[in-house]
Amino acid sequence: MVKRFYVDQYADRIIAGDRIVLSRAITLVESTLPSDQELAQQVINRLLPHTGKSIRIGITGAPGVGKSTFIEAFGNYLITRQKKVAVLAVDPSSQRTGGSILGDKTRMETLATNPAAYIRPSPAGKSLGGVAQKTREAILLCEAAGFDTILVETVGVGQSETAVHGMVDFFLLLLLAGAGDELQGIKKGIMELGDALVITKADGANYLQAKKAKSEVEQALQLFSKPESGWFPQVTICSALENKGINVIWNQIDAYFKLTHHSGFFQKKRKDQNLFWLHETIRQALLDNFFAAPAIKSILPELEQQVLDGSISPTLAAQKLLNLT
Amino acid sequence: MVKRFYVDQYADRIIAGDRIVLSRAITLVESTLPSDQELAQQVINRLLPHTGKSIRIGITGAPGVGKSTFIEAFGNYLITRQKKVAVLAVDPSSQRTGGSILGDKTRMETLATNPAAYIRPSPAGKSLGGVAQKTREAILLCEAAGFDTILVETVGVGQSETAVHGMVDFFLLLLLAGAGDELQGIKKGIMELGDALVITKADGANYLQAKKAKSEVEQALQLFSKPESGWFPQVTICSALENKGINVIWNQIDAYFKLTHHSGFFQKKRKDQNLFWLHETIRQALLDNFFAAPAIKSILPELEQQVLDGSISPTLAAQKLLNLT
Repeated sequence: MVKRFYVDQYADRIIAGDRIVLSRAITLVESTLPSDQELAQQVINRLLPHTGKSIRIGITGAPGVGKSTFIEAFGNYLITRQKKVAVLAVDPSSQRTGGSILGDKTRMETLATNPAAYIRPSPAGKSLGGVAQKTREAILLCEAAGFDTILVETVGVGQSETAVHGMVDFFLLLLLAGAGDELQGIKKGIMELGDALVITKADGANYLQAKKAKSEVEQALQLFSKPESGWFPQVTICSALENKGINVIWNQIDAYFKLTHHSGFFQKKRKDQNLFWLHETIRQALLDNFFAAPAIKSILPELEQQVLDGSISPTLAAQKLLNLT
Repeated sequence: MVKRFYVDQYADRIIAGDRIVLSRAITLVESTLPSDQELAQQVINRLLPHTGKSIRIGITGAPGVGKSTFIEAFGNYLITRQKKVAVLAVDPSSQRTGGSILGDKTRMETLATNPAAYIRPSPAGKSLGGVAQKTREAILLCEAAGFDTILVETVGVGQSETAVHGMVDFFLLLLLAGAGDELQGIKKGIMELGDALVITKADGANYLQAKKAKSEVEQALQLFSKPESGWFPQVTICSALENKGINVIWNQIDAYFKLTHHSGFFQKKRKDQNLFWLHETIRQALLDNFFAAPAIKSILPELEQQVLDGSISPTLAAQKLLNLT
């Protein structure tokens, strides 16, 4: 059981940059106890005026692409640029698999031990919505604690990218040039999320493959329509191992930040994201309540089976369920 | 006011292929009267054993790509192959703009007058969910009436593609090689939906550009991971004007049908879609009820504004609203 403080104590100490209290506040956010949740929301709301002043960067890539190595190199680079870096994660599988990305800080040893960096593993959770909400709130707490660059890692295996894309300003997609000249297959719908696409491990024998992959990806991107941000996704190659290309990526993010701040897109996107999360939170709560009702639980499996058999239409089955509440 | 029959009358006449009654049943599905809705659901459920035996093909493309011309040529070709073709549409904008795609049948004159074809404009509706549901149910009614090839057109301007993708077996994406050598920008996330990508208007001066676009798209597709269907999207060029390439497209669809039937993916996808629509219908109903409540309506705009101002967190604002119900 974590020690609890009053709202003001949390707020004041977090604003003062107290990492212990920051961690406890995030634990509060992650708690499933209603009393903790209520307290967490009070703390967050108290801190709101101190949030939002960071740049939030999402980072994803398929397993094996070298996310941890990249984030460590990138994070350490940012710190040399006098940035205060918080690394968070969204990994809905962490509950089921037991292991969470970022769970093992030794994978980012130098960053984890750097006082200018703060690393927090992915919260556990059954639903992606729940995990994502906790991470969004952890972002706010980290911002209030003075972290000006938030890196949100996600496991490049599906929907979590979309959730993370919805909570960051800039989305980094890490790609790996495979053993053949081919790019490791990109999960559908994810490539377009990238504001920057980075071919990792562009060192040694991989270098030429990475260069080739770069031009292939650039060609593919030409097919897509102009993004609303006015920013055309850039493709770069980098080697975290040889520490090459990291600065180029940061310069891109900086350029994106300046461009979209000037155009107002940055601010508009933040507002849109908040509005989206308001409705998303409501949607999630309505669904959770509905499917938690005993009357629904008892009949849902049977109706789902009938829908699968084709013995009842989805609409009629839905109506039967809705009539129970 | 449309004349009403008993459930059996609708069912029997639709199974007998009575197009007048089919149209009336679809009107029933599109009606907002609760009594009509109840009757419509009874009719659909009665007809379920007679549904599902068609191949459902989604067709999309940006305005100007020549959807109507393509569908007319494609539909007429299918009829020469002894197919019975129903053409439906999903266009959520039809309400707002007044004009609906397919609303003007003269755009498909020869197809519209062909007894082996049945064309129905997009249902009107405020929400995409509502429009999509009506079209899904129209598909079932058309199948019961003996149509074995269902074409579902959508407007190629955003989310409606995803909705249509969720109700069809095969998704055709129409692309246009632009005046420059460049492909007309493809809306993000849509290219991966295509099981077949067709470069239209590959005639006259456009021919060479279309050929070039074809290879560009093929290269881009190589970047994506192997689809669960085991089917690799094909890219073809066609000219509805010169009636070229239409048969190639049908051969692809036929090959896809055989491949996925054999592997069982086809049947699995249908089941997954039904389960998806069950939950989607519930989700939509829960949201509609929630936001229709006067207590919510009265305070929502104010809370949304506070979220936009950053004076309240999305989560807390959501909780305030949820506590009102």
